[in-house]
Amino acid sequence: MKLYDSGRAPNPRRTKIFLAEKGISIPTEQVDMMKGEQRSPAYRAINPMQRMPALILDDGTIITESIAICRYFEVQQPEPPLFGVGAKDIALTEMWNRRCEINLLLAVANVFRHSHPAAAALEVPQVPAWAEANRPKVVEFLQILDGQLAKNQFVAGGRFSVADITALVAIDFMKPSKIDMPADLTHVKRWYGEVSARPSAKA
Amino acid sequence: MKLYDSGRAPNPRRTKIFLAEKGISIPTEQVDMMKGEQRSPAYRAINPMQRMPALILDDGTIITESIAICRYFEVQQPEPPLFGVGAKDIALTEMWNRRCEINLLLAVANVFRHSHPAAAALEVPQVPAWAEANRPKVVEFLQILDGQLAKNQFVAGGRFSVADITALVAIDFMKPSKIDMPADLTHVKRWYGEVSARPSAKA
Repeated sequence: MKLYDSGRAPNPRRTKIFLAEKGISIPTEQVDMMKGEQRSPAYRAINPMQRMPALILDDGTIITESIAICRYFEVQQPEPPLFGVGAKDIALTEMWNRRCEINLLLAVANVFRHSHPAAAALEVPQVPAWAEANRPKVVEFLQILDGQLAKNQFVAGGRFSVADITALVAIDFMKPSKIDMPADLTHVKRWYGEVSARPSAKA
Repeated sequence: MKLYDSGRAPNPRRTKIFLAEKGISIPTEQVDMMKGEQRSPAYRAINPMQRMPALILDDGTIITESIAICRYFEVQQPEPPLFGVGAKDIALTEMWNRRCEINLLLAVANVFRHSHPAAAALEVPQVPAWAEANRPKVVEFLQILDGQLAKNQFVAGGRFSVADITALVAIDFMKPSKIDMPADLTHVKRWYGEVSARPSAKA
């Protein structure tokens, strides 16, 4: 088993934080996205989508998409549960993870990929107007998240979950994307301090 | 229990096809997105993200995001399984569902939302260059999907799954988005004929 990883890139990092929370350690191989190594014929044979990360199982099966890799390990080792327990909690965890993916991680990534010179080879063509359209979306969603974190310790409720991982990675990705955290989001800040202090956040 | 639904809009339709495959029937209430009813104070109290669909449970819990709603029913009624069975199959089903969401459904939606006059109130601001950038992405992914369907009856392998639902809905959404299906994708066409003929596709 091996994880194809890419430094601090947001999606591989989600998988690594998830594994750290589970206490699972597996060998990794680095693929440098800034050097375009994900577009090499060798890596395209692993993932034709040219995206990171990818997991190769001992039987040769290749699993891509960070959340698909996380789900593999959730079934293999259910404790601690990171996708919820029981129908309602599983659904609410999925809901908040997806809200954080679509409205935060994807929106921040759109800003980075369509405005940062270092992303010119990743995103062809860059559409600067699309980067700008996403900046206010990020702030709008952070305000909704602040309301949720005013009433709950973690993003999906009372337990740390994959939704916290997605939100943490997205917020850390705001810095290279040059998006400032609004000063008045006190509940997001309280939560960010707590999840950033977990050992898994070093991943 | 009630599902807030919106005609033939792609995401509510995913949930309805899923429920039809499970043989589950629940009351629905229509929210007309083209009239902007999802932005009304009444619906914003249900889903501050102003997106469709939403499920309200008998205890008042609100679940939004179509796949989160589908997962609720997958746990409540596991048969027939639509998210896979066992770690590897669950991971591969998640992988293909996400590939179809990100590279097909989202790409087609980007074309529609950023180019169609009827979507001007849904997507503010419309960025026409982003619509155009997404057209070749749709075709590129359909070619990868054709390769997968050359070797497998369904999108995620040998069993009908949520990934087929996402792909079917995305392909049907190509018509209002004015994207033509490339003529040479024979395996996609074979599969499309089969899944479209299932009674659930009428949802």
